[in-house]
Amino acid sequence: MRVGVFGASGYTGLELLRLLLQHPEFEIVAVTSEQRAGQPVGEAFPALRGRLDLAFEPARPEHIAERLDLAFTALPHAASAPTVAALRRAGVRVADLSADFRLRDLPLYEQWYGTHAAPELVGKAVYGLPELYRDALAGADLAAVPGCYPTSALLPLVPFLREGLVETSGIVVDAKSGVSGAGRSLDARYLFAELDANAHAYKVGAHRHGPEMEQEASLAAGEAVRLTFVPQLIPTTRGILASVYCRPTRALSAEAAQTVLEAAWGAERFVRVLPQGEMPSLQSVRGSNFCDVGVVLDERNGTLVLLAAIDNLVKGASGQALQCANLMAGHPEETGLLGGAQLP
Amino acid sequence: MRVGVFGASGYTGLELLRLLLQHPEFEIVAVTSEQRAGQPVGEAFPALRGRLDLAFEPARPEHIAERLDLAFTALPHAASAPTVAALRRAGVRVADLSADFRLRDLPLYEQWYGTHAAPELVGKAVYGLPELYRDALAGADLAAVPGCYPTSALLPLVPFLREGLVETSGIVVDAKSGVSGAGRSLDARYLFAELDANAHAYKVGAHRHGPEMEQEASLAAGEAVRLTFVPQLIPTTRGILASVYCRPTRALSAEAAQTVLEAAWGAERFVRVLPQGEMPSLQSVRGSNFCDVGVVLDERNGTLVLLAAIDNLVKGASGQALQCANLMAGHPEETGLLGGAQLP
Amino acid sequence: MRVGVFGASGYTGLELLRLLLQHPEFEIVAVTSEQRAGQPVGEAFPALRGRLDLAFEPARPEHIAERLDLAFTALPHAASAPTVAALRRAGVRVADLSADFRLRDLPLYEQWYGTHAAPELVGKAVYGLPELYRDALAGADLAAVPGCYPTSALLPLVPFLREGLVETSGIVVDAKSGVSGAGRSLDARYLFAELDANAHAYKVGAHRHGPEMEQEASLAAGEAVRLTFVPQLIPTTRGILASVYCRPTRALSAEAAQTVLEAAWGAERFVRVLPQGEMPSLQSVRGSNFCDVGVVLDERNGTLVLLAAIDNLVKGASGQALQCANLMAGHPEETGLLGGAQLP
Amino acid sequence: MRVGVFGASGYTGLELLRLLLQHPEFEIVAVTSEQRAGQPVGEAFPALRGRLDLAFEPARPEHIAERLDLAFTALPHAASAPTVAALRRAGVRVADLSADFRLRDLPLYEQWYGTHAAPELVGKAVYGLPELYRDALAGADLAAVPGCYPTSALLPLVPFLREGLVETSGIVVDAKSGVSGAGRSLDARYLFAELDANAHAYKVGAHRHGPEMEQEASLAAGEAVRLTFVPQLIPTTRGILASVYCRPTRALSAEAAQTVLEAAWGAERFVRVLPQGEMPSLQSVRGSNFCDVGVVLDERNGTLVLLAAIDNLVKGASGQALQCANLMAGHPEETGLLGGAQLP
Repeated sequence: MRVGVFGASGYTGLELLRLLLQHPEFEIVAVTSEQRAGQPVGEAFPALRGRLDLAFEPARPEHIAERLDLAFTALPHAASAPTVAALRRAGVRVADLSADFRLRDLPLYEQWYGTHAAPELVGKAVYGLPELYRDALAGADLAAVPGCYPTSALLPLVPFLREGLVETSGIVVDAKSGVSGAGRSLDARYLFAELDANAHAYKVGAHRHGPEMEQEASLAAGEAVRLTFVPQLIPTTRGILASVYCRPTRALSAEAAQTVLEAAWGAERFVRVLPQGEMPSLQSVRGSNFCDVGVVLDERNGTLVLLAAIDNLVKGASGQALQCANLMAGHPEETGLLGGAQLP
Repeated sequence: MRVGVFGASGYTGLELLRLLLQHPEFEIVAVTSEQRAGQPVGEAFPALRGRLDLAFEPARPEHIAERLDLAFTALPHAASAPTVAALRRAGVRVADLSADFRLRDLPLYEQWYGTHAAPELVGKAVYGLPELYRDALAGADLAAVPGCYPTSALLPLVPFLREGLVETSGIVVDAKSGVSGAGRSLDARYLFAELDANAHAYKVGAHRHGPEMEQEASLAAGEAVRLTFVPQLIPTTRGILASVYCRPTRALSAEAAQTVLEAAWGAERFVRVLPQGEMPSLQSVRGSNFCDVGVVLDERNGTLVLLAAIDNLVKGASGQALQCANLMAGHPEETGLLGGAQLP
Repeated sequence: MRVGVFGASGYTGLELLRLLLQHPEFEIVAVTSEQRAGQPVGEAFPALRGRLDLAFEPARPEHIAERLDLAFTALPHAASAPTVAALRRAGVRVADLSADFRLRDLPLYEQWYGTHAAPELVGKAVYGLPELYRDALAGADLAAVPGCYPTSALLPLVPFLREGLVETSGIVVDAKSGVSGAGRSLDARYLFAELDANAHAYKVGAHRHGPEMEQEASLAAGEAVRLTFVPQLIPTTRGILASVYCRPTRALSAEAAQTVLEAAWGAERFVRVLPQGEMPSLQSVRGSNFCDVGVVLDERNGTLVLLAAIDNLVKGASGQALQCANLMAGHPEETGLLGGAQLP
Repeated sequence: MRVGVFGASGYTGLELLRLLLQHPEFEIVAVTSEQRAGQPVGEAFPALRGRLDLAFEPARPEHIAERLDLAFTALPHAASAPTVAALRRAGVRVADLSADFRLRDLPLYEQWYGTHAAPELVGKAVYGLPELYRDALAGADLAAVPGCYPTSALLPLVPFLREGLVETSGIVVDAKSGVSGAGRSLDARYLFAELDANAHAYKVGAHRHGPEMEQEASLAAGEAVRLTFVPQLIPTTRGILASVYCRPTRALSAEAAQTVLEAAWGAERFVRVLPQGEMPSLQSVRGSNFCDVGVVLDERNGTLVLLAAIDNLVKGASGQALQCANLMAGHPEETGLLGGAQLP
């Protein structure tokens, strides 16, 4: 199958290239970048020298569509919607990594992101978390690949919400992220000298991934879920370590909590439920599509602590997009995704 | 005044030396280290070459006491108690950086740390958080300098507990720490290759600083406080970034929450209350004795988010010990402590 | 083909597992570790959970040999030699990652490493740098996989020595390495807190990789080569950045120097000659088997600057071992080795 | 004495503020920043909250001069010259941290930096390396504070050049620098995600600090010195580790080489000659004004290896500027500069 990557020079775009180059079924036939249009990929990114014999081209979906069976759009929100719409009009299946089709509620989208350029497609995309929407993704035309933070929070939390085991308000998601989640933004906060040996929260209770988490958490719970999302930057490039704090609705033992996770995800290829006492770590998932999850119950204080670790560029973006694309294209879900973490 | 540092070759000991070398009133006359006994300080630590003309000696408090007006004990817990006891018997005032005299309840101490070697002194030390116990520290003979995590959690939390503004159960302390808090332990988890680009929780709900936090939080609240303490390692050397999650007992506005912090700490030299919307960061406090605190209220979800940043080796250990020693010796509290953070 | 990894719990052993798990022709059937004998791999290393269904076993080559077609020995020097000898006696082909068979001169080996446990095999191994010894490796029984530093220095330097274009004395190899090159050694110098934000030289002119470089450089030059090797630790986990300084024996233009590299390595899959003005970087090779090389001529000062970057655990160890094993087994050299660098 | 800092919001400016706030004789009365004009210092930089009660003002030397006894100019090259000229016209003494007055040869300056805005002052500044120009700095009106790289290369090299002990051509300066040397430039190369775990050379043989090194090296040698300067970025914020490679002009023992350094710098407060076998490290000098130097002789290969470590923002910029200012103002040279390195 011939695939194209729109926005291929950003961090998630480059990660798609890395993964696609090892995929036995997808062939990269087009890569776009406005800034680098005309430049050979290997010249722009020496790491790809000798690996991919293509040049970046401008993102003209109308011209590129005919060459493609499937497209990955790794463009900024708002910029993505019209490109996706054009690709869909041309009949190309799309795994969209932007936020443009994640929220099902148009007014909510516009409150957080501004005017939507393709409102007709809102609600038609499948939320691209295969562990939740596998059946719908099989054969879907448009996947809205989740945000990195929502992926890290939903995988440990949803099993408890589904069973009504935790209260649907008062939930706290405290997530620590590497800086690649911000993309290659030329912002002083992301300079090495500013972030090295540093750490700080940002957009507390005001990050756009909050409503996305609440949407999916509410769907899982069958009622409105309220959570406080506290994103934090830590001095690393890749990875999200999420701690989710919630309160059991009824007496729950540590073993029962463990069983909830194992029952939900035991058969999943990319979610690993760690045994009691073992903690997810960024290193164990870096570069891989795994999400490691664990649970600790503080009975004394009535608090359930859910922990998760992902690589934000893989399971939090490009790996998950590829997992969706595999499902959309009818390939085994794990195709091209079994490369493991680098240790150390 | 002549001071000695027991356990001077560990990280908190070395940080004491750095700070004491800039202190106008304290003169370092003795430094101890079992491993490095006999070795000149500048030979063992090239950074101190040409800065301190002393050799390490074994930690024999009986022999050293007569040379000292005041001692800092930066020894491991259990090892500290008998040294402190000997120094006190010799009439030397002590700022103890170990955990041995922080808990007022001997059985609680022994549950978490094992047999106490100087039980007669338990409960006689003043908890060395000057912002809470300034009057008692003035003229005290023995200060139990707080743990790094408790310092970072108590300074933002205590003002709300004192006023009964937050519930005393269900509190979560999610704290991210640099690895120097573990000392120079030869443990594979602390190797550069294992921690670089890594992050993980550890001892969730089972860290020794938990009961210490609860002791002081309960004293502030006037009733038993329950909290879930989740320590996490992040890939940096210095600093603790703490997020404390709690629930208001009654309607509280963001402005009112801000006012609580400002009323409590506005006159403090080393606690800086950040304006609404500004987040504490490790970089702003690194190398300094400041604790930066901030507050965000998530009214939708009924959650109060308290944030704090300290340098674990300064306000979380050696700087705070010096702040205590200043009070104990009758010097202005900030003497020798106004060196600011390195930027970047 | 059934392969085993001896010393599979160290950094190069784990990297072999990562690479072998993506190799279509090699099946891992045995992994050894003295310390972790009996422990399932995924329990010891959560990153490998769900990836490799084996337990570590003690390194008994006599018992394991019959299960293997080929073995990778990733043991410390001295410990490796007897294991390799036993495997060879049992007819198993071996790619040895230790230093035990790299030096052809037994007295030189014993001067640097101590008594050799299998002197009868010294000089019988093929030096496992495929770019230099491809033909000999095809079908070889024993490959001595080069040290990480020699790989980084030889690839840029050998083409100039072969043609007599640079002086054979006065050469300087200034190499900066990530700390994983030291393995998981519990040495205080390798603690995160000691190496973070730090950098320093070590064993200047006295590192064991010096004689290894000189051996191969001399063979390339056809005369004795003298070089000063200055290894340095920099605060990163993976990668070696080598700068080699030498003096042209006759007038040489920048273009001619560039041509020398391109003529030597233009057809190589894993050596990328960067265009004039582009500098090798660790990021471009991290996680991959590439060695990027570049050259700058300072005509004013009569100095040729050769630059190279590798991932010390891949092209500097496990990737190169796999490249050798592919040749030894008759597989295309690049099999299982085309995974590219992670960006960022 | 009243001092002002022009360009106080950059990294060297902020480091001047940190150091000046601990200086007993200098009072900061003016700080300038075009971008942040009008903003209180503590608002722009939370680390300085509660430490300095001033607001940034635009850099109008004519208006500010009357308030000052001495000025530090930490502006970009070319922007600095006219400011310095205006301050000098107003009779204010200046320690200039830019490159504008370092080169004594106007055409050489203009070849590397472009048109000079105050050519009349070129050659009138004293090169601000107190270890070389102490007498001239005492009472000087204008000091040209050296570049960070030249400081790190000259201190180990000059003693050998002065005595004619090393050849004046073929010298190589291989220097590894933290990224703060580039200032707070919004350049993608300096983003955390691009530099973390990365390292690469840049401007090999073409960096502006090369001619500056050659100027001072030639003055020391009494003849033209040629060197190849190879700057490299390593993933840290502060520090330069320099290796200087040169060839003895005559037989030299390791002891004799050691003696050369000790004779030259033994009496210096801020240059520490390490004993044979001990290597300078960034950690030992970070945050301090020390330059640690060491020497290793490779007799076999006829190569002298000189090593040096500095904090580029202290001894490589702001600390050195303060050392100059102390001399210019008649204060003891070390005033306010004895704060040591943070360990770890």
